[in-house]
Formats: sequence, structure tokens, C-alpha cells
Amino acid sequence: MLQEGEKMHQLMKKLYPICRSITGDGVRETLRIIQEVIPLKINEVPSGTKVFDWEIPKEWNIRDAYILDEDGNRVVDFKKNNLHVISYSIPVDKVVTLEELQNHLYSLEDQPDAIPYITSYYKERWGFCISHNQRKKLKEGKYRVYIDSELKEGSLTYGELIIPGECEEEIFLSTYVCHPSMANNELSGPVLTTYLAKWIISRPRKYTLRIIFIPETIGSITYLSRNLAEMKKNIIAGYNISCVGDERGYSYLSSRDGNTLADRVAINILTFNKLDFITYSFLERGSDERQYCSPGIDLPVASIMRSKFGEYPEYHTSLDNLELVTAAGLQGSLDIYKQCIELIERNETYKVNCFGEPQLGKRGLYPTLSTKESGRIVRDMMNFLAYADGEKDLVEISQLIHVPVWELFPIIDKLYQNDLISKMNT
Amino acid sequence: MLQEGEKMHQLMKKLYPICRSITGDGVRETLRIIQEVIPLKINEVPSGTKVFDWEIPKEWNIRDAYILDEDGNRVVDFKKNNLHVISYSIPVDKVVTLEELQNHLYSLEDQPDAIPYITSYYKERWGFCISHNQRKKLKEGKYRVYIDSELKEGSLTYGELIIPGECEEEIFLSTYVCHPSMANNELSGPVLTTYLAKWIISRPRKYTLRIIFIPETIGSITYLSRNLAEMKKNIIAGYNISCVGDERGYSYLSSRDGNTLADRVAINILTFNKLDFITYSFLERGSDERQYCSPGIDLPVASIMRSKFGEYPEYHTSLDNLELVTAAGLQGSLDIYKQCIELIERNETYKVNCFGEPQLGKRGLYPTLSTKESGRIVRDMMNFLAYADGEKDLVEISQLIHVPVWELFPIIDKLYQNDLISKMNT
Amino acid sequence: MLQEGEKMHQLMKKLYPICRSITGDGVRETLRIIQEVIPLKINEVPSGTKVFDWEIPKEWNIRDAYILDEDGNRVVDFKKNNLHVISYSIPVDKVVTLEELQNHLYSLEDQPDAIPYITSYYKERWGFCISHNQRKKLKEGKYRVYIDSELKEGSLTYGELIIPGECEEEIFLSTYVCHPSMANNELSGPVLTTYLAKWIISRPRKYTLRIIFIPETIGSITYLSRNLAEMKKNIIAGYNISCVGDERGYSYLSSRDGNTLADRVAINILTFNKLDFITYSFLERGSDERQYCSPGIDLPVASIMRSKFGEYPEYHTSLDNLELVTAAGLQGSLDIYKQCIELIERNETYKVNCFGEPQLGKRGLYPTLSTKESGRIVRDMMNFLAYADGEKDLVEISQLIHVPVWELFPIIDKLYQNDLISKMNT
Repeated sequence: MLQEGEKMHQLMKKLYPICRSITGDGVRETLRIIQEVIPLKINEVPSGTKVFDWEIPKEWNIRDAYILDEDGNRVVDFKKNNLHVISYSIPVDKVVTLEELQNHLYSLEDQPDAIPYITSYYKERWGFCISHNQRKKLKEGKYRVYIDSELKEGSLTYGELIIPGECEEEIFLSTYVCHPSMANNELSGPVLTTYLAKWIISRPRKYTLRIIFIPETIGSITYLSRNLAEMKKNIIAGYNISCVGDERGYSYLSSRDGNTLADRVAINILTFNKLDFITYSFLERGSDERQYCSPGIDLPVASIMRSKFGEYPEYHTSLDNLELVTAAGLQGSLDIYKQCIELIERNETYKVNCFGEPQLGKRGLYPTLSTKESGRIVRDMMNFLAYADGEKDLVEISQLIHVPVWELFPIIDKLYQNDLISKMNT
Repeated sequence: MLQEGEKMHQLMKKLYPICRSITGDGVRETLRIIQEVIPLKINEVPSGTKVFDWEIPKEWNIRDAYILDEDGNRVVDFKKNNLHVISYSIPVDKVVTLEELQNHLYSLEDQPDAIPYITSYYKERWGFCISHNQRKKLKEGKYRVYIDSELKEGSLTYGELIIPGECEEEIFLSTYVCHPSMANNELSGPVLTTYLAKWIISRPRKYTLRIIFIPETIGSITYLSRNLAEMKKNIIAGYNISCVGDERGYSYLSSRDGNTLADRVAINILTFNKLDFITYSFLERGSDERQYCSPGIDLPVASIMRSKFGEYPEYHTSLDNLELVTAAGLQGSLDIYKQCIELIERNETYKVNCFGEPQLGKRGLYPTLSTKESGRIVRDMMNFLAYADGEKDLVEISQLIHVPVWELFPIIDKLYQNDLISKMNT
Repeated sequence: MLQEGEKMHQLMKKLYPICRSITGDGVRETLRIIQEVIPLKINEVPSGTKVFDWEIPKEWNIRDAYILDEDGNRVVDFKKNNLHVISYSIPVDKVVTLEELQNHLYSLEDQPDAIPYITSYYKERWGFCISHNQRKKLKEGKYRVYIDSELKEGSLTYGELIIPGECEEEIFLSTYVCHPSMANNELSGPVLTTYLAKWIISRPRKYTLRIIFIPETIGSITYLSRNLAEMKKNIIAGYNISCVGDERGYSYLSSRDGNTLADRVAINILTFNKLDFITYSFLERGSDERQYCSPGIDLPVASIMRSKFGEYPEYHTSLDNLELVTAAGLQGSLDIYKQCIELIERNETYKVNCFGEPQLGKRGLYPTLSTKESGRIVRDMMNFLAYADGEKDLVEISQLIHVPVWELFPIIDKLYQNDLISKMNT
């Protein structure tokens, strides 16, 4: 069962060294590698394009960066860890005193071994991120700071995959590809989404799938600005997929509304799997659900995560690495998302076809001998029928009668074969 | 106050020995005896009649049954206890080995002194029910098994009593007469319903009463199939009356909706009587509420019971006998049902006739001296008036102001006499 | 900050000795003194006027009252404490035995040092209120009882202040001026309302203020009977101001509806001030909210109090005096009421002006450097924007995002200046 987990972890190892940001060749290279697994369409949106209240920034690329001490030692080297440079740093090449250098250094006093992840997309500056322990070792003297980066008119790059279903209604999946070398937040999201898409492609489906790999914030705003009308019309449920790779408990982050199909399905699946999970309100949001659930957009988008962004110690540091994320961690999250997709696919509002209880006995669905205990044998089927009133969908009935949907699927199949229930047109 | 309790227990003694099933002369004899107390109309519906998804089965009657050992001893004798034969057993008369016999014996290992109650209405088989202790004593050898029963084209029998009220709206009571010699489940239901009907007949009433004595499941389905439109139009509240005879605590079983007038009245009366009662959800249903509350039928039917079916050790065995059910147990349940009927009768949506608080003092309804405590003396009346806003019914106001309805009845009468409140047309 | 508290306490000292009742010169004198602070309009409604279910009673005035013992000692003297005479006592002047006298004496056995406050507005009687200790000391003998009071066709007096705002919608404040020499219940209410009105007059306002100083019950009924249509049309929120002077915790008394703007604002302000407060249901009502929230009137009127009437030991006795009520106690209540008025004034339903999150960074509202912690810096602004969906008002958003409104006011101002949000027309 870990087969997909292993493949995901392999893919992550391949993607991990790439220096990604919200634009640039790192994103393109990442999407190209993902294309080896699923037929992603890659889109480019030029710098300067207006997207809602925002504008696509210049494209950023970086080739090299380091700090040399007076002896010519590379005390900081971008090639060793791409977190060392602030994302979107402007180029620099000069000699500075330690005092001047300090103004451009970022470290975490309470996590002295970690390199922090820092960005400055919308204000031009340069800077290096290093561990606090390393920073403390820096001696008085001169340092050469060198960042070989480039900010130019270019484009924002994102990947999109539309998998057509039987109907126009869509399930929406969004993940982001803008983080450099970190693992849970974030490479676990794109990697899981890739294999989830692969699984979806491999099987028949009712709903169309809209799956996007974007840079966070500016990417979701860009995508929404180009597709909003269609998305509002078609999307019945969606998930923002992030932080799905470690082996700690699960997290559920509610949509702004809190009661969309995406929320109800997530809660149902997490609950009936008897998983230990924390429920976060929309106040604890932090990723692209910020855009998908914003006023006027109001898409039904929730998130199922492992350790949620901002809530685990390794978050946004070099400690969020390939040891924190495991094949088992990824596999567990994938299985949950598969169950969610399956439930959305099978979710219907059912109505029993006759008045009163149907006579199950004559169809071989009920014991012919009524003993003291016999009433419980087909309890779940009877309970399903009792609540199949043409108003409640499968998710609601499952909650009401305390039966997991995967135990209801075969029951529903039998009731169908016997023409005892109908689906309502919805 | 136990006078009715004693009469009910007497009636139960008379009915107890009769072998009832879902059809046959046992039901007819039972209804005939009840006719000595209330003017029940008896109806027959022919075997083979289609009723919703079901069909009226053949009529079953039994004259005698026994098992003889090699010495001619009646080791099992239907005449001693009619639970000994599976209900709807086909006739048999042959000699079998003990091994063969075992395939047709039913006993309860964990209740070794009890004869279980078993039925096989919709599949033809024969069998005997005995205590596990007796079964263990059976020796190797030959046994003659003899069941003098008959399955024939006949009819299903039920009793109906319509007690006209001032208006067409109805209160509905349903109980079942298909169980052989057991007491709480079930003779307590028909016996209580008989005396409840007698009490209702004896007093003026607003609502029409529809009271039926039927075989369980097939009987309610049959009755519904013949009367559904009228019942849906007229019934404002109803109860399925079963398991009302022992002296243990009370049980309330909710309708599927859970918030019908029948539910609200039951909860109000049980709560304000400060009775120890267990609330069961509709998931714990098991009697004719299964039909009355099924999708598309959706009648407002709840149940108030003593020990609920399936929840007490004697259930569906010979231990559910005339010692378990007592005059006091029956009387307690009868009193509760009377209060429920009375509350439904008196339940109205009230509206105060003036703006602001009425001046109760000038009508002698308020103390003329305002002391530190005086505000509390007429607190209940003031609170009733404060909530009599033309939207809340009496049941709701009683809950809101924490006052039992029987304490509100005289208050309402006084307010009426003083022309201070009106009833809304509903 | 206690400046107003001191002024309120000074005003209270001036008003305290006056013998007020539901009519008479005590009310007039009280309102005249309040006119020295705010431009109250004084109205007179003649005795005998029909007001809803009531009638304005005769006007009552009293000049003197005492009990003389056989030696001519004034054992009880109205001039020392006006609580000594039952309010609305008829005149009397005769010699009685101690035994006869006892029928006209009122005391509290469990508060032996307190003089109780007793009224008999609607039934003619005479009587004296004394401490239980004093009563026990009375010796056998003759007593001269003397009450120089008068009941005559006169009028009921109340004060009214309409402070026009930009629009017709009104905030309503009601307090009562019918209690003789007691402090928390009641002089704290009129005194606080006076200074609250003074503060309101001193600043610009959106809503019109309707502020009334009335005798309790008969006064609110009278006022409602003359102004109901206008009040129902215009009042968006109101408070009945009573018991606002001691230094104990706060009390919130809900309107009948429980969820009006007045309730929501009161709960918001009390909660975010982290005050220790008790929530009382409308069942615990006792002042003019009884009328304002009665069926058919249904004004959105709640109360914020200190020690609630009926709930503190000094209530309705001579122990409720100028020591119980303090400048600090009054000031605390005034500050809360000011915050409530301010919140009602500023409460709007907001809508963000763009799709997706606005780019706060380019407007200097968001840090340009994204560090591990930076997301929290503008968290409140982001959360406000996330919920500004054109459906939720400020009170609701404040509760949803757990931010006090006074911290949201400057945020809203900034968002306005940047044209990022709009007010919905309501």
C-alpha cells in the first residue's frame, strides 16, 4: 500500500533541490518534472498583467550567491541551501563590514540551527538567511556579499490540468509550487496532488476535475481573475492541498462558510476513519483558501493537512526537510483525499421508492426468522432507508445513522439493484 | 387512583392466554373482548391484498402442538405456553430423531429458563421454542413432533375506533395485537389504549381521535395504505403505544423528525412530572413508528414507554409475563398519556389582548401592596403574558418559563375570564 | 477619568433627599434639577387619562409624617427618612393602640436594621415602614399616627429629551425617577442618563437620541401609549438604565428577543472589556423592559446594570444609600454605556471592494518582508477583510474574529482611506 507513498517520496527528492519562487525557472522546471507523471498544461502570464487588486511582478531568477570572508572562505553558500538567499533578492556584489552585513542577515534566535525562509516579493532588497549559531561565529572584518540574481519583465508560470467528467460540475484541487527547498510546506502538496490526479485519471468519474499547480497568493489571484465565472458556476467542492507529508496527526481547516460540501466530506471521512485530527477555523487560514473563500469568490474550498502550516516547529525553516516528510505520511494523506473524492463522486440525495418500509424479506435482504437479535442484522440498511427521504444527501445520512460511507456503498448498490431507492435530480 | 390500573390488569389476565399472531382467530378473539369495553369496529382485509410494497399473507391458526418422547410424555406442550410454537409454523406430524429435532428447536443459552418468542411470517417452516435448560435434558431417541396448524386464504383483522371531536383534526393512537402470551411487549399497549379510549369517550373533546388495534408492521402498512391521504391531512399528533406496563422508569422514543407536536408534548409532560426517563433517538425505533415516520408518510408519531422493547431482559421471552406488568405500572403510563392528550387538546397559540402589561391589580390578579417579594407572587402569570405573543404555543411557553402546563391551565382560565388573552386561529 | 463620576455623585447627593413617587412634586423637583445639566422637556399627563390597559392615578404629595409616643417623642419621622411612609399613603391623624399600629407597620425580620421600601399605588391604605429593631422596641401604649399627604386630580410628570441626529433612526434610553431616597435602585439611573445625554450632546452623531425620565411602569406605559408608532418605526436599539452605581460586577439583562442590536452590542462591549458580568434572561426582568419588550411592542431594549434589582441585599431598603453607590461605580457604568452608544453609531455592514485579498503591501498596510511571524502583524486587518462580505455587521465581525471594536475602528478608517471597503445601505 505504500507503493504510491514511495513514488511520491521519490518525486519529492527530485524536486527538492530546485530553487522555486513565485516566478522563474524553478517553477518551470518543477512543473516539467510533474509533467512526466500527469499531462499538465503550463501557462505563462506576463509581468505587469493586472490581476484583481494585484499585478504580476517581475520574474526572478538566481544563479548563485555567497558570502566570502577575508580569507576567501564561503561562509554562506546558496548552492548548499537555497534558503540562504531571501526570495526575490536583488543582485549585489560588494564588500561590507560585519556591521553593515548584519543589517542584511536573518536568523532565528530560538531555533539556532535552522535557516529561516524569508521572502520580499514586493519590495526590492537583498539579504541572506543563516542559522543563528553560524551568525554568532562571524568575526569582525570585511565580507564580500554576492548575489547573482535577476529581476526582469518575464512571466508567472502555473500548471493546469482539466480532467473531463460526465458532467460540467467540477471538483477543484489547488496546490502551490513556489517554495524552495522545504518538504512538508511545501513540496508535499504538489507531489500528493500529482499522484492524486494520476489516480483520478485512471478511473471513471462523474465530475470534471480542475487541478492547478500555482505560486501561492499571486498565483491563485491570477488564476481566479482569469477563470472566476466558470469556477463559481461549476465547482461543487474543492481542496487546497498543502502540508500533507509528515506522520503526525491530521488537521482540517474549514472553509469560510464552514458547511460546504468540501467541509462536510472532509469531516465525515476524517471522523469515520477514527483519525486524530484538529479542527482549525477559517481564522487560522494561511494559504490559497484565503483567496478561494474571500467575499464575492466564496468557493467551497477546505483543507485536510497533516501538521498545519504555522503550527509545527520546523515550519518555514531548513528543518522542514526530507526526513520530516515520509512515504507513509504522504500515503496516509493520499488515501484520505482519495476517500474524499470518492465520497463527493458518490454523494447523492436519495429517496426510497415506496411508502412505508419495503419488504426486504422477499428480496432476500432480511432474515426470514425473527429472533430476539435479528432486527440488528440489517439495521444499517433499514436506517439508510428510514432517512432516504429525498432531502438528505449521503454525507448527512452517514452522520445521522453513524455508519461510514464505505459501509453504505454496498448497501446502496443492493437497494439500487432492487429498485428500492432513487437519486434526486440535484 | 389505581382503579383503572386494576381494571387494566384484569383485562390483561383475560387476554393473556390467547394465542395471537399477525392474523387469525387469536386477534379476532382479542378484539372481541376489547369490544366489551369500547365500541371497536373490526375490519378484515383478504389474504393476497397488495398493501404498498407488501401483500397480506395467508391467515394462520393453530389448535394444538406438542412433542412426545418415546414414553409418550408431552415434553413440550403448546397448551401450557403458546410461545412453544414458532408463530406461523406450518403443520407437521412425524417422528424424528433428537438430531433432526434440534434443527427445529430454539432456545436462549444466556437465559436458560426463558422460552424465546420466534416468528417466521414470510417463510414456511416449523419449529418449537423451549427453555435452554429443558433442551439440555432431552435424551437421545425418537420424538413425535405434532403441530396442528393451518395456513389458508383468509384475512388480516384489525380494530378501529374513530371518536369524533369538534373539528376534523385528529389525534392518532396505534397499538398492536399480534403478540402471543407476553405482557409488557405486548399486551400492555392494547390494554392501556382500551382504557385511554374509554376515558377519552367519557369527556368532551376538541379533536377527533383515531385509534387502531393492528398487527405490527403488516397491520400499520395495511392501515396506512387504506387511509394515508386522510391521515396526512388530519393527524396533528400521535403515539404508538407499546411496552407501557412495568414499573421501571419511562422511555421516550422520538419521531423521525424529532420536533413534532407529539414529541414536544411527550417531552414536556415527562419533564415536568420530574420522571426519570430515557430519550431514545429514532435510530432506536422498532415498532410501528417505523412505518408512521417513514419518508413520504411522515406522521407526527412518537412513543412514551416504560421499559422499551429490546432494552429489558425479559423482552421477547416467556419472562415478559403478568408479574412484570402491574396495575401500578399500567396506571402510571395511563396517567402520562392522559396528560399528553389533555395538553394536545388545550395547546393553543395565545396572544395578549393589550399593549404593555395589563393592569392585573384592578382585576384582583395582582397584590396591591408592593413589597420586596411581591413581584414573585404572580410571576408565572406575568411570564405567561410576556411570552403570549401570538407565535408561541402553550407547550413552548411552558418550557420557556419553566412552568408545568397544569399550573398554567388555571392561569390561562383566569386570563380568559378577564378577556386578557386570545387564541390565534391555527 | 473620574471627573464625571464625581459630578454624577454630586448630582445624586442633591437629588437623594427628595421624596419621589410615581407622581407629584418630588418628580417635578428632580426633573428641574436635571434640567440644570441637560435641556429636558417636562410633560404632564392628567390623572384619569387612559393609557393602554391602565389609567393615570391621582397625584400624590406628602408634606410630613410621624408617629408620636405617649411622651410626645417622634419615634418615626418622615423628615429623617422618606422611606418611613408607604408611597401613596392616604392621610391619617389619629391615636391608636400599639396593636392597631402593628397592622400598619412594615419591617424586615431578616434585615433588622433596614427600613423597607413599600408602595401601594393602586389601593388606598396608610402605613409606616421601620426597621425591625425599632419595631421591637415599641412599648404597649397609645401612639399618634400622623400623615400629612394628599391624593388629588393632578398629573403624571415625565421628562423627555430628543437629540436630533443625521437620520430618523433612533437610539432610545429610558430611566426612572419614581423612587424615594435610595441610591443604586434608584437614583443611579437618572444621574448616569443625565451625564450620558450631556456627553452625547457634546459630539456629532448619526442617530437621533430619544431619552426619557419617567416613573416606572405607569410612566413607560404612558409614554408608549403616546409615541408607540414612531418608536416602533425608528428605534434601532435602546437601554433601560437602572442600578448602575455600585462597584460590584456587571449584569446584562436580555431583551425578550435576546438577539436585538441592543443585546448584541451590550454583550460585545461587556465581553471585550473582559468584565465580570452575569447574564440574566428576560425571565429575570423587573423594570420598564417589561413594557418595552412586551408582545406587540417588541422594542429592541436591553439593560446593562451593576448589581441588578432584586439581586443585592440592600435592594429596596434604606441600606441602598449613598455609600453603596460611588463615583467610581457610576463612572464605570457610564464608560460602558458610552462604548455601547459609540458602537451603535459606528456599526455598519461592510463589504470589501475587490475580489480576493487586496494587495495591502503596495498601500503600506502590510510588511514587505515575509518572515515566519509576519503573517500575524496585520492579522486583524486581514481577518476583518475576510469577513467583510456585505452580510455581517461590525458587531458580528468583531465577535467572529475575536477583536474588540475599538481596535477595529482605526483599521476600518485606514481601509476606508484606501477605498478598500464600502458600507452597505441598510
